[in-house]
Amino acid sequence: MTKIHLLMKKEDIKEEKMAVGNKVAVVLDVLLATTTIVSALKDGAKEVIPVLHSHEALVAAKEYSEDEYILAGELDAKPITGFVYPSPTFIRESIKGKTLILSTTNGTVALRRSALASKVYIGSLLNNPAVASALKNVTDDQTILIICSGNSGETSLEDFYGAGHLIDCLLMNSKYELTDAAKTALYFYRGQEDAYEILLDSYVGSLLEKHNQNADLKVAASKGITSIVPILIEGRVTVESSLTR
Amino acid sequence: MTKIHLLMKKEDIKEEKMAVGNKVAVVLDVLLATTTIVSALKDGAKEVIPVLHSHEALVAAKEYSEDEYILAGELDAKPITGFVYPSPTFIRESIKGKTLILSTTNGTVALRRSALASKVYIGSLLNNPAVASALKNVTDDQTILIICSGNSGETSLEDFYGAGHLIDCLLMNSKYELTDAAKTALYFYRGQEDAYEILLDSYVGSLLEKHNQNADLKVAASKGITSIVPILIEGRVTVESSLTR
Repeated sequence: MTKIHLLMKKEDIKEEKMAVGNKVAVVLDVLLATTTIVSALKDGAKEVIPVLHSHEALVAAKEYSEDEYILAGELDAKPITGFVYPSPTFIRESIKGKTLILSTTNGTVALRRSALASKVYIGSLLNNPAVASALKNVTDDQTILIICSGNSGETSLEDFYGAGHLIDCLLMNSKYELTDAAKTALYFYRGQEDAYEILLDSYVGSLLEKHNQNADLKVAASKGITSIVPILIEGRVTVESSLTR
Repeated sequence: MTKIHLLMKKEDIKEEKMAVGNKVAVVLDVLLATTTIVSALKDGAKEVIPVLHSHEALVAAKEYSEDEYILAGELDAKPITGFVYPSPTFIRESIKGKTLILSTTNGTVALRRSALASKVYIGSLLNNPAVASALKNVTDDQTILIICSGNSGETSLEDFYGAGHLIDCLLMNSKYELTDAAKTALYFYRGQEDAYEILLDSYVGSLLEKHNQNADLKVAASKGITSIVPILIEGRVTVESSLTR
């Protein structure tokens, strides 16, 4: 039976272990990076390039002409000069057909640290049901590793909720062996109906509310609104074609 | 307002951080070390000496004559030659008036790594309500740090449940500021009525059941059966006198 395991924060990712044991990773940063990625692709972005920091973003941008990309980022939740704040609602207006170069404190770093897994999917409340469907073909010898980005070394409520949501979706399709960590998130999720309330109750959610970004919280809380399944291949996130699954 | 924070596993303990910020630690290893400690003190043990490994246990034993102590331990859940298996029901029969020298894979190591906190309490489902009462006098500038021992680097279902139980008990007495990690355990706990079912569903619990140790699972699941509040001071765990609180 395929095993489902869960990491609570990006600091728990051991890069040397990602390449062994046939792991299929799903990275979650519900507030906000992976929500932003899914949302941008849904809004017509050509691709997303997740980077480790703003310097790498600027280097990546040099490969494009000015009208081909959007540079978005934050560091410890603060804006970066010259970057669009990585909010789904800000980015929506101008992303169609463009490349999103994205630098965030947790989510994009978690994605990059997971790159050695055999596949790396991007999850969020928006597309977890679709990601769960894409994982139907995972074989018994593989492990589905759900990676919560967390918040600067700490567990975050919203990612834990997102992980529980994904596991709940997975179990609708098939049987899996759950580790204790996976069970904690599943049981937690099943006790909490209202995604928006949980997001609002989280540390990052309360900051977003304080800065009048409730629109982003509402986007992030929208369970299952898209069938997009983004996948990270060679440093670029694109929508996985159903033919390649 | 006093903050409550939670660490998911002993590997998240940063010893250099324990000594700063006026931290009051509560260490949990529901299956089984902290349950064994609480249970042994309830059964009349004079004190408990938590050690890092069997060699240290043997060195510690040299300070006692043969009828003054019991040597108990496991390594990766397996028995250690010459040591009693650290099961509350095994130890009960012969612990009265004696020192328990205890070597375990997770719980005693977590305790030792937490030793630099301003106070270190030992929690379990048995005595969490009593520990919560002992914490009534914690001041606003202090942080209550709940430490799940976990299982060899992984989150364990039973410790997460125990942490939620402790937080639930704390909130009956007073108001606290909860970090996201603390909230995950609380909300999880509140959705799961039956402690025994959770313990049985955990990885370690399923191993104990396989080895016919259901009696220990039942002991570990007994919420609030004792008012004992064990505290670690200079390497020794004794029952905190209510006069010293």
